[in-house]
Amino acid sequence: MLTPDQLDPTDPEGAIAAAAQRCSNWGRWGADDVLGTLNFLTEDKRVEGAGLVRRGVSFSLSQRFDMDGPQKGWRRRTNPVHTMLDTGTDAERGQGFPHGLGGADDVIAMPLQASTQWDGLGHIFDHGNAWNGRRAGDVVTSAGDSVTGIETVADRIAGRGVLLDVGRAIGTDGELPDGFAVTPAHLRATIEAQGDSARVGRGDLLLVRTGQLTRARRDIAEGRGWGEYAGGPAPGLSFTTADWLHGTEIAGIATDTWGFEVRPNEFDVAFQPLHQVAIPHIGLFLGEMWDLDALAADCAADGRYDFWLTAAPLPVTGAVGAPVNPIAVK
Amino acid sequence: MLTPDQLDPTDPEGAIAAAAQRCSNWGRWGADDVLGTLNFLTEDKRVEGAGLVRRGVSFSLSQRFDMDGPQKGWRRRTNPVHTMLDTGTDAERGQGFPHGLGGADDVIAMPLQASTQWDGLGHIFDHGNAWNGRRAGDVVTSAGDSVTGIETVADRIAGRGVLLDVGRAIGTDGELPDGFAVTPAHLRATIEAQGDSARVGRGDLLLVRTGQLTRARRDIAEGRGWGEYAGGPAPGLSFTTADWLHGTEIAGIATDTWGFEVRPNEFDVAFQPLHQVAIPHIGLFLGEMWDLDALAADCAADGRYDFWLTAAPLPVTGAVGAPVNPIAVK
Amino acid sequence: MLTPDQLDPTDPEGAIAAAAQRCSNWGRWGADDVLGTLNFLTEDKRVEGAGLVRRGVSFSLSQRFDMDGPQKGWRRRTNPVHTMLDTGTDAERGQGFPHGLGGADDVIAMPLQASTQWDGLGHIFDHGNAWNGRRAGDVVTSAGDSVTGIETVADRIAGRGVLLDVGRAIGTDGELPDGFAVTPAHLRATIEAQGDSARVGRGDLLLVRTGQLTRARRDIAEGRGWGEYAGGPAPGLSFTTADWLHGTEIAGIATDTWGFEVRPNEFDVAFQPLHQVAIPHIGLFLGEMWDLDALAADCAADGRYDFWLTAAPLPVTGAVGAPVNPIAVK
Amino acid sequence: MLTPDQLDPTDPEGAIAAAAQRCSNWGRWGADDVLGTLNFLTEDKRVEGAGLVRRGVSFSLSQRFDMDGPQKGWRRRTNPVHTMLDTGTDAERGQGFPHGLGGADDVIAMPLQASTQWDGLGHIFDHGNAWNGRRAGDVVTSAGDSVTGIETVADRIAGRGVLLDVGRAIGTDGELPDGFAVTPAHLRATIEAQGDSARVGRGDLLLVRTGQLTRARRDIAEGRGWGEYAGGPAPGLSFTTADWLHGTEIAGIATDTWGFEVRPNEFDVAFQPLHQVAIPHIGLFLGEMWDLDALAADCAADGRYDFWLTAAPLPVTGAVGAPVNPIAVK
Repeated sequence: MLTPDQLDPTDPEGAIAAAAQRCSNWGRWGADDVLGTLNFLTEDKRVEGAGLVRRGVSFSLSQRFDMDGPQKGWRRRTNPVHTMLDTGTDAERGQGFPHGLGGADDVIAMPLQASTQWDGLGHIFDHGNAWNGRRAGDVVTSAGDSVTGIETVADRIAGRGVLLDVGRAIGTDGELPDGFAVTPAHLRATIEAQGDSARVGRGDLLLVRTGQLTRARRDIAEGRGWGEYAGGPAPGLSFTTADWLHGTEIAGIATDTWGFEVRPNEFDVAFQPLHQVAIPHIGLFLGEMWDLDALAADCAADGRYDFWLTAAPLPVTGAVGAPVNPIAVK
Repeated sequence: MLTPDQLDPTDPEGAIAAAAQRCSNWGRWGADDVLGTLNFLTEDKRVEGAGLVRRGVSFSLSQRFDMDGPQKGWRRRTNPVHTMLDTGTDAERGQGFPHGLGGADDVIAMPLQASTQWDGLGHIFDHGNAWNGRRAGDVVTSAGDSVTGIETVADRIAGRGVLLDVGRAIGTDGELPDGFAVTPAHLRATIEAQGDSARVGRGDLLLVRTGQLTRARRDIAEGRGWGEYAGGPAPGLSFTTADWLHGTEIAGIATDTWGFEVRPNEFDVAFQPLHQVAIPHIGLFLGEMWDLDALAADCAADGRYDFWLTAAPLPVTGAVGAPVNPIAVK
Repeated sequence: MLTPDQLDPTDPEGAIAAAAQRCSNWGRWGADDVLGTLNFLTEDKRVEGAGLVRRGVSFSLSQRFDMDGPQKGWRRRTNPVHTMLDTGTDAERGQGFPHGLGGADDVIAMPLQASTQWDGLGHIFDHGNAWNGRRAGDVVTSAGDSVTGIETVADRIAGRGVLLDVGRAIGTDGELPDGFAVTPAHLRATIEAQGDSARVGRGDLLLVRTGQLTRARRDIAEGRGWGEYAGGPAPGLSFTTADWLHGTEIAGIATDTWGFEVRPNEFDVAFQPLHQVAIPHIGLFLGEMWDLDALAADCAADGRYDFWLTAAPLPVTGAVGAPVNPIAVK
Repeated sequence: MLTPDQLDPTDPEGAIAAAAQRCSNWGRWGADDVLGTLNFLTEDKRVEGAGLVRRGVSFSLSQRFDMDGPQKGWRRRTNPVHTMLDTGTDAERGQGFPHGLGGADDVIAMPLQASTQWDGLGHIFDHGNAWNGRRAGDVVTSAGDSVTGIETVADRIAGRGVLLDVGRAIGTDGELPDGFAVTPAHLRATIEAQGDSARVGRGDLLLVRTGQLTRARRDIAEGRGWGEYAGGPAPGLSFTTADWLHGTEIAGIATDTWGFEVRPNEFDVAFQPLHQVAIPHIGLFLGEMWDLDALAADCAADGRYDFWLTAAPLPVTGAVGAPVNPIAVK
């Protein structure tokens, strides 16, 4: 396993290749597998997760989907455009329905990764290879992901959730600064600080709070806008967590940042190198842009960091990622 | 309360007005309320619901979101159009990223009611009046629903679900024919047939299976396509269930049909008259186009008709309805 | 040159290869060319075309862009969805602007080939080869056509237009039946029947009317809808016109049908074989779904079949086709 | 008629009301009119316009339609999102077509006023009144503009174009500074400077170049981006041109700026006050975001400022504005 001081910043390609070899799950669940680490999320884990509901309080971990989001158009990722097919102003004037009926209806156009989402297994490739050793072009064409489309996991993602509030445990005033790389040591320290309910293991759905979204919201409230939340500097997972992510056998992981991993990345010239190991080689489901603040405040208050989590992506056929409104219940 | 033989088919407007008066919840939760019947879904109900998870088996109750759906363009409701911003075929040829990284990304354009969805409280008006007595034009403009937008219930819809498989209990080979009006008597008979786990009361999320989707799927498999699933004749709730829906104090109700209520409707000239009572007057959340078949088969097998249900709509700001991937766990 | 009775219906691939060899314009205008046959449309042709304006009467040759179009979703080609961002009903109620200002605004989502359009040179490939011998993947990725995008011809398509009303000259009651293959002999006979103003030569923009749109409109008016206008049987250009299209050195050609060439195609198993010669090998611009009826009636009345034609595609960067509102002036 | 020093900056509403009264064309062409000032564009004007084609050189006056445009999301006006349904990278790998055929296809989602466009007569209202005295809500609902939709003028806009290059005639280095109000005196001085080919009268299509787009392009080239081109400070028509616009009886007017009129506007608190007179009262067609630079350079070189102009909007049914690729030919 690699420690941060062992990373050679000039050789991302070598580091990725080595980590990919150490962490590969290719073939682990057969040649036809489309579930990746969701194979770890068994029915037993769901029974365990449901047992964590004590008070019945629920939290939506989703940001809103609207034009006021952080997207700036990079690689054509825009904010959602929501328009109406019929409105109440129309209804007051009459819409031609019988017996006084009126209606409103609406449409949306958006990137599937515009806001809170899961990356599917067809989202990232390593040298043209997709999850489980398939060729990228055999998986995702203009017609979408015909193999690992997000609909293949439509019924899976409900189980035990665990929050690691690294922002609170390690950061200042609950926040890690941009560029802060969360290492395995930070994750272990957070688990230790949070106590037994924060243990992380096979089949868990792990949520890592950095506090960056809290900071972005403060910036917005104070008139500075989203800034570079979408794609700019951010705290996040260190490349050196690859082995930890693989070894813990978690079913999925989500953060409150745009891109899951630390930015700038830890190599001189790189773009999302941890994705390149995590998705095609580990088969790990990554969640991004989740809103963990209300849940984190509750966890800090009652000292319990695990809960029942349902985070079922919208089953868009062939999607390589999908929006989700995750619901945690304690 | 009304029985079907007391309906005057020539006077939907009168019947609606009377039912609206009998069933109104306006003001029940204060002048500012935006939750309607979701007020019945308390934290206690969630604790009760979580206790229903026994085996850990999960079911997605969502249809797929793609071009192969049933929409035909009526009132500009189309099927979702999913396109790619980057693909695996591109990635194999090189996309300009460093260290062998490749990626796929996607966008969608769709009506929010294209497939499995919740109607929001701003979806239907009665003579220009919206839920809780507001004027329709004060609630929903071209900018969306500024009062009862679906995001206001983003964290709410998780609790005890109950399936009434009326298709199996009352129908033939598990299906009700198109035009079959499900009355309170049918609902009560189904509850009785299904036994104690099928009791329906305050705060429950009720799922009513008619079997129409099963039939549509068979039609598709046999080459006949979706037919008139989207907006045509269908089994569904009778107008005479208005008082039952109000009196049971359920938190929400969903069906496996396009439009929740029976079609053709039970009046000579009418369009969705039960909606006109249920949404603006009862404040009831209606789910449509849910896929209840796999869950229903499991319930028939083990004889247990209640379960933990999470059905959190995608929180599109200002939406009058929203797609959802509901997850039932038993 | 090939005559129809020389086509071997069992060997489209061979026929295409032979025609491609005979008709290739690869390299004719240099290795960097992106204009194809629009190179024939010189400034002199524009001067000649402008001289055809005699009465000042103008004709739009565009069908409407809306939900009532012929598209049925095949290969995700839908009809345009037009929605409002602000409306007059909103404006009457007040939109927050000063001094009584009100406004309406709108958006559209549509395939670029939903209605009246030009095919760009990146629209069709032959065995992975695009216009001028480039590899398809070097030209068109998910980011669009980076070489021959329609914007490269934004200022070109204005010149002498000629209508060949084959429907009137050869058909019955002005219409050719579906499946009717228009051969070079039919084109020559039409030119002869129409007289000197119908001569066709280098740099002309040729419009071929089959009458199918007239028939589709009658079907719609009589309640039968669009039928199979989008992609079904149709009159159109015979595969055997490839050499004629090449030899006349026309700048572009458009028809009143969905797909320019006759359907079913003239081979046992084929899909748009003439496209496969015309676009990648001849470099010919094809217009489809044009509305030629009003212009044709005027030409029939005054006996003049040439006119000034402006048909400038909407310059969507990287588009492989683009909507257009062509204007003919006589 | 008003001169700039007679404007009371504290009373836009009064100034608008007075100008509306002086300049109203309501009823001039009958109660059913939907053409407004396009009534001035007669067939004679087209014959005159066509006579201006001397060299056959053509100019596209359209900006590109893509994600790199100036829109910033204000009032949900985004840049166009162009995505592919099929690509060349797919085609190289095989798409399932016979005989080696490959294809690319694309879709777009965009505001109709994202780039170069015409405002339709349903775009702006004055105190809830639309063109010709109709109520705004009777004209434009969520279903679009059912009266003056842009398709009603699909075949009209071809005639004599005149360029007034105010940037060159009055500005410095060809550009007017942001906030510069172009008055009738400036327009007259430009006409005088440009000579006889620049005369403006009944039925003409007038193009006014301020040079702001030239400046924006320089900013982009130098890395500063579009800045506030979409909705920020700009040179443009003074409110005091209302009477001149009315009195000249031009058929339409277009500028190289986002909003046609000077910004900030000439009142203390105002938003597009000249629109409020020009569209609903004069019935004038306004073009915005046109690219006049290449044409202007040619006019400066040969001293001829009039030309044949075709600027036919894409006929989106019910649109209150529409994209256009205007073509000038000299």
